[in-house]
Amino acid sequence: MKTLQALQEQVQITFKQEALLEQAFTHASYLNENRTKEGKHYERLEFLGDAVLELTVSDYLFNRYPERPEGQLTKLRAACVCEGALVIYANELQLSDYFRIGRGEENAGGRTREALIADIFEAFVGAMYLSEGIEVVREFLGKVVFPKIDQGMFEANNDYKTLLQEWLQQDGDIKIVYQLLAEDGPAHDKAFKVRLFVNDEPQTFGEGRTKKIAEQAAAQAALAAYQTKINN
Amino acid sequence: MKTLQALQEQVQITFKQEALLEQAFTHASYLNENRTKEGKHYERLEFLGDAVLELTVSDYLFNRYPERPEGQLTKLRAACVCEGALVIYANELQLSDYFRIGRGEENAGGRTREALIADIFEAFVGAMYLSEGIEVVREFLGKVVFPKIDQGMFEANNDYKTLLQEWLQQDGDIKIVYQLLAEDGPAHDKAFKVRLFVNDEPQTFGEGRTKKIAEQAAAQAALAAYQTKINN
Repeated sequence: MKTLQALQEQVQITFKQEALLEQAFTHASYLNENRTKEGKHYERLEFLGDAVLELTVSDYLFNRYPERPEGQLTKLRAACVCEGALVIYANELQLSDYFRIGRGEENAGGRTREALIADIFEAFVGAMYLSEGIEVVREFLGKVVFPKIDQGMFEANNDYKTLLQEWLQQDGDIKIVYQLLAEDGPAHDKAFKVRLFVNDEPQTFGEGRTKKIAEQAAAQAALAAYQTKINN
Repeated sequence: MKTLQALQEQVQITFKQEALLEQAFTHASYLNENRTKEGKHYERLEFLGDAVLELTVSDYLFNRYPERPEGQLTKLRAACVCEGALVIYANELQLSDYFRIGRGEENAGGRTREALIADIFEAFVGAMYLSEGIEVVREFLGKVVFPKIDQGMFEANNDYKTLLQEWLQQDGDIKIVYQLLAEDGPAHDKAFKVRLFVNDEPQTFGEGRTKKIAEQAAAQAALAAYQTKINN
């Protein structure tokens, strides 16, 4: 469990209203189990952050691609703020490490649920908007989100496995392996989990309804991780 | 056809970038038929305005209802920015009177299509945001949208016919009639159109998949019209 102080240092933003930051990283189950503590949980901030993200991303796309018609912009925006994309942003900052969650929910695997991880990112953006204003949010997204848009991560029909291979082969030959870790569930509702290895080093995980989707997810996550390193 | 000068006077906003206002009120079909004229059509502004509206409304609801949980806020927001609501805002300002549309599209009834009327409102908001900034948009919505939220127009399970009756009967007995004007389409995709009469005076129209929905829509539109008069 990391402190919110560490998070503020990581993103280089000092929150004027730290209570909002705390709220963004608090699950209702945590408040229920700690009745003596006052506090609010993240859900209302997630509601607000969702809209903040929608506008800041729309604004960015509108200006970045002056020639693209509305239909393309709408599809691209949807890809930039879908659950899978939010999980990538959140995991890059390891946001779930800062999240306060009740013991029952923790044991039920709540902290690693993708829907919750996506929510935390939105709540974080909502708190940032209220405490620091939209320009600080824009600057923050300029590090975490907009570079990925520029790199084409959310363009339609992306083949992340191919993109990853091209990316890594810039530095010469490389061995990429997708290892199947688990295959759960009934035939109509399968869940595959794979791990990506690069030159026998374990890298990212990927999950999905098919082995191919899981591999694509792992490749997408790896691309995000490499491209982030390049930017920092 | 009214001029955009008249619109600016009506809403008491002078656009610094009038070209954006012009773009918001131009259909692609108009540009196609007038090839000598330069210009852009409204669709990209609608993309942006949609997100501007989403944030300004979310922000308003978040502050206006500090005790409501996320689920209620999300439902209320959806009701405030759904097509039906946007049509109410747009018609109150008679926005489609300012819209430039090609002759073919005009003859096909394009100007009165609800989806297009809703789009025009979003495009108008998008142009206002780019030209004047988000605070001017907020002020504008403070006249056109937020009062309706306060009056409970978008609360779940609203029965507009009852609300309208209660509203009108404040001033004594009144005769309310919903006249069925048209019933089109095949059984699985019916379209009903009704007109509301108050004391034999024709008032608003309403459309919908059932007669009841059409009547509710007419009542909702009438409520909006009356409440707007009260506010001005």
